[in-house]
Amino acid sequence: MGNGDYECPHRVAIPPSKPFFKSLKSGLKETFFPDDPFRQFKNQPASRKLLLGLQYFVPIIEWAPRYTFDFFKADVISGITIASLAVPQGISYANLANLPPIIGLYSSFVPPLIYAMMGSSRDLAVGTVAVASLLISSMLGKEVSPIENPKLYVQLALTATFFAGAFQAALGLLRLGFIVELLSHATIVGFMGAAATVVCLQQLKGILGLVQFTHATDLVSVMRSVFSQTHQSKKKPAFFWVNAMAPLTSVILGSILVYFTHAEKHGVQVIGHLKKGLNPLSISELAFGSPYLMTTIKTGIITGVIALAEGIAVGRSFAMFKNYHIDGNKEMIAFGMMNVVGSCTSCYLTTGPFSRTAVNFNAGCKSAVSNIVMATAVMITLLFLTPLFHYTPLVVLSSIIIVAMLGLIDYEAAMHLWKLDKFDFIVCMSAYLGVVFASVEIGLVIAVLISLLRVLLFVARPRTFVLGNIPNSVIYRSIDQYPVANNVPGVLILQIDAPIYFANASYLRERISRWIYDEEDRLKLSGETSLHYVILDMSSVGSIDTSGISMLEEVKKTVDRRGLKLVLANPRSEVIKKLDKSKFIENIGQEWIYLTVQEAVATCNFMLHTCKLNHGVEHNSQDNNV
Amino acid sequence: MGNGDYECPHRVAIPPSKPFFKSLKSGLKETFFPDDPFRQFKNQPASRKLLLGLQYFVPIIEWAPRYTFDFFKADVISGITIASLAVPQGISYANLANLPPIIGLYSSFVPPLIYAMMGSSRDLAVGTVAVASLLISSMLGKEVSPIENPKLYVQLALTATFFAGAFQAALGLLRLGFIVELLSHATIVGFMGAAATVVCLQQLKGILGLVQFTHATDLVSVMRSVFSQTHQSKKKPAFFWVNAMAPLTSVILGSILVYFTHAEKHGVQVIGHLKKGLNPLSISELAFGSPYLMTTIKTGIITGVIALAEGIAVGRSFAMFKNYHIDGNKEMIAFGMMNVVGSCTSCYLTTGPFSRTAVNFNAGCKSAVSNIVMATAVMITLLFLTPLFHYTPLVVLSSIIIVAMLGLIDYEAAMHLWKLDKFDFIVCMSAYLGVVFASVEIGLVIAVLISLLRVLLFVARPRTFVLGNIPNSVIYRSIDQYPVANNVPGVLILQIDAPIYFANASYLRERISRWIYDEEDRLKLSGETSLHYVILDMSSVGSIDTSGISMLEEVKKTVDRRGLKLVLANPRSEVIKKLDKSKFIENIGQEWIYLTVQEAVATCNFMLHTCKLNHGVEHNSQDNNV
Repeated sequence: MGNGDYECPHRVAIPPSKPFFKSLKSGLKETFFPDDPFRQFKNQPASRKLLLGLQYFVPIIEWAPRYTFDFFKADVISGITIASLAVPQGISYANLANLPPIIGLYSSFVPPLIYAMMGSSRDLAVGTVAVASLLISSMLGKEVSPIENPKLYVQLALTATFFAGAFQAALGLLRLGFIVELLSHATIVGFMGAAATVVCLQQLKGILGLVQFTHATDLVSVMRSVFSQTHQSKKKPAFFWVNAMAPLTSVILGSILVYFTHAEKHGVQVIGHLKKGLNPLSISELAFGSPYLMTTIKTGIITGVIALAEGIAVGRSFAMFKNYHIDGNKEMIAFGMMNVVGSCTSCYLTTGPFSRTAVNFNAGCKSAVSNIVMATAVMITLLFLTPLFHYTPLVVLSSIIIVAMLGLIDYEAAMHLWKLDKFDFIVCMSAYLGVVFASVEIGLVIAVLISLLRVLLFVARPRTFVLGNIPNSVIYRSIDQYPVANNVPGVLILQIDAPIYFANASYLRERISRWIYDEEDRLKLSGETSLHYVILDMSSVGSIDTSGISMLEEVKKTVDRRGLKLVLANPRSEVIKKLDKSKFIENIGQEWIYLTVQEAVATCNFMLHTCKLNHGVEHNSQDNNV
Repeated sequence: MGNGDYECPHRVAIPPSKPFFKSLKSGLKETFFPDDPFRQFKNQPASRKLLLGLQYFVPIIEWAPRYTFDFFKADVISGITIASLAVPQGISYANLANLPPIIGLYSSFVPPLIYAMMGSSRDLAVGTVAVASLLISSMLGKEVSPIENPKLYVQLALTATFFAGAFQAALGLLRLGFIVELLSHATIVGFMGAAATVVCLQQLKGILGLVQFTHATDLVSVMRSVFSQTHQSKKKPAFFWVNAMAPLTSVILGSILVYFTHAEKHGVQVIGHLKKGLNPLSISELAFGSPYLMTTIKTGIITGVIALAEGIAVGRSFAMFKNYHIDGNKEMIAFGMMNVVGSCTSCYLTTGPFSRTAVNFNAGCKSAVSNIVMATAVMITLLFLTPLFHYTPLVVLSSIIIVAMLGLIDYEAAMHLWKLDKFDFIVCMSAYLGVVFASVEIGLVIAVLISLLRVLLFVARPRTFVLGNIPNSVIYRSIDQYPVANNVPGVLILQIDAPIYFANASYLRERISRWIYDEEDRLKLSGETSLHYVILDMSSVGSIDTSGISMLEEVKKTVDRRGLKLVLANPRSEVIKKLDKSKFIENIGQEWIYLTVQEAVATCNFMLHTCKLNHGVEHNSQDNNV
């Protein structure tokens, strides 16, 4: 072992088969705990384990002792900045969800406090988002009218939030975070764009109805200028103050304008009276017994997953910038708890919106304390400042929503997908069209199914390549990719590019046969050395099932019947174990399994020449004419 | 190009990107026409193309001119043999489907004639099967009682057969044969066993009810002897005559016994009057307007797929023995036409049953003419011999069904699955338990979903391996599989074992980071050369999407930030094209992409030593201590 040189081929190792439960355990661990969260618990005393466990679920215990005054100064500035965004956005999005505006403010008070304790991102700013608000209004609005039955509608929204939070926490606790990964980047680009389109159309209708006395072209030009402004600010973070302060400024200016012109008496709708005081408890409002329970559960699950997808992607992106680590499953638990507690304190669904987090990041936040500062600012607003919003015109809120929405329609990302990967573009467009023309659920399901189809197609129709020798080397590579590579006379080298499973066993059998027929035809036409060996390069075959083993057995028979010899190169550990158990190794002969293609070819060449010298193989006379 | 030697590394080729429609076309061709059925049409005159096209759909045109008298003699013997099986089985299975016995005989007349013209198997014997019969009775019986409303029930069964045939033909014409491949070997083993269990329990109840005067133990011992007989005959094909003739013999003996003892007057149920004459047309019976249309369509699709799975697997297995080729999609068209025509001529669902085909094969059939002989024998039976079955006791039919069924419960196959592949065993058992305890549809759906889950899991949780150098070679292989392989000092070589898609991008990012942390920890503890290079071996990465590219960009950032260098080895053509388009190659640097792991390691080693000589790299002093 290990004393081989180029003449003596190396042996393919057959790892000892692990006991069933051991391999089951390691498989489950890789599937559910790929990040090995228990690593730091190893070899620690019980008290330390308890502390680590607490720190795992409530990270603030871990970082609070290291918190400095310099950090606090930075967090106060960024916290106040995001609060100036949180108040008008909270009111606007609640409006979009057809919920009372005050619930939007409540939602920027309790959930940020919970996240500050449990979340592991230092940059994420918690708040409500337009897409989830839209989903709530469209899914629940189908069952209960928010105008005719506002109390029940609010109850259902809170209940849906509860289910969203419970589902999020359950995903995290059960380590099922990969369900969120089914929403690929392409799906999210398409989905967000579609949601933004729907929201804008809705809001525009409202605005156009209200501003019937102004010129529509003005509106368009205003929107265009506003849009180009946000667009610029996206590219130049130095301008982010414009972006951060615009909503509050327009709310203040709009309210002052209405107050002094008494426009509310001339048809301009305003927010009206807002109750003073902090979040009332709402546990008793959760409508678990309502006849709409299934709808609230469905709404909760869909909005919960969407909110997670956005929040976790945002958290991860900013963690990348600052080079710290975010544990997806732990974040899910934090998001889940924040929404469960939120639903009991009159808050609806919150997550980590991209826009607010970007503002937080640009304002120089250092830790989740900026969320606490924001919550405090919102608390002060709730306690003392709500009367100030009495005269805020709804049209300003619509503009705030539209501006936020236009940023979500990401043409460039869609074009990038088209340029880079047509299949991802199809996924993106199907999410977009599905959501715009059918419904949110249909759009998402179609996009996820198409994404999965690609994965299945990769396995169901694996690519097979003919390998050739790269000149002046012992390297064998696909002739497709490397046109300089030469065929080896008398030997056909095939590479299989996927695990061999039931879904592709028939296809591979057919395809391998076709390669052999084609090669024999080609050789017959060109008069080269006829085929003697078929080498299957198994380097990329990561796994095999029983259908796959039967397929190999049938390929062996086919190859035998044509008077050829089947040779395997580099079967991997999963594959060789099963080939051993199924006696396929005995069938093919241990001596026909090689560690590398190069060694397999060397042996084939050696045999070809020896046989010719000794027995004068059949009819073919030409040799080495490539 | 091509003048490289070991010192000058080879370049990774970036194939020119194909125009979109060209790559779409080749992709669609590989997906839907992997066997290239149009190959022989190339460069042929139009008249020849027409003939080839006709021969494609009606293969009898192709082989009939070459048919010899010797073949005919063999086919007559095998045809009569299978007819002796077809008549009693036809009656029995029709009974199982709760259809009039005569429909079972009809079904062995028209469909074999159609198959003989259109099918490409030389061994397949056409007939009804127990599992499909059971499905028809259980699925349609839920809607319409065959006792209270026999006429409507027959109409629904014929309509379901029509839909089964139409669906089968459509699958073939649309080249969607891979849908049948979703029923893996493991699923079919479990499903067949479950169907057999259900049928046996049903029939036993009937038998036990009938034979209340005899001793139950006798029955068991009779069954046991019958079973052991068939079991033996499965292993020793020389005894197949026993198997082939047993049903007809028991029918004859049973009928004679009843006739002479007048047992039909003492509670033994018999078939009773059978109409003489050939199949009546039944187009007008097809109930497309019935309120049960959805049920018939569902029944048709499920029985159609199951029948195809059995028929095609059987055809393929026997074609393997005789070394000829079966075109799956063409067979589907033949099966489909046979059932569509059958449904218009009072036949219910037929396929190629394993048992009858095996008998046909053992009796020495040479071509599909044996099906024509069988059909002729059945025709004679229909025209003249039906009165003979008047006294055939139903209990004999039940025994025939049970004997056929017991052969379907394949303990050995299930044990084989357990030994070879636990996951396949789970699939098999879930199909079995699902069908026995829930319903056929639920069992099948669960088994197919679990099978697909495995494919998805393979991609969602791809294995990553650390590679090491096999001593005395330039080969790099997984340290897991080859414990003799040595780590390369200062270099971490990771192999990724699946395409990089949205479904695994997050996982791989986490996993690669964890490998790097773990390796740095290990090196710190052992005091070896610290890490400088991370080589990703991309040999097994067959494809990448936009999420995958983002993942690689993030890994690059992580690696950079830790002061390491990312190196790629052997990116494949699909991957390198996209890395090129997305500018990732510029990002990582063309000079850090190598054709082989060996060349990447050689460069890393060279750089490590040069750097040390020139700059005296940091703290680590030991070198080459592995």
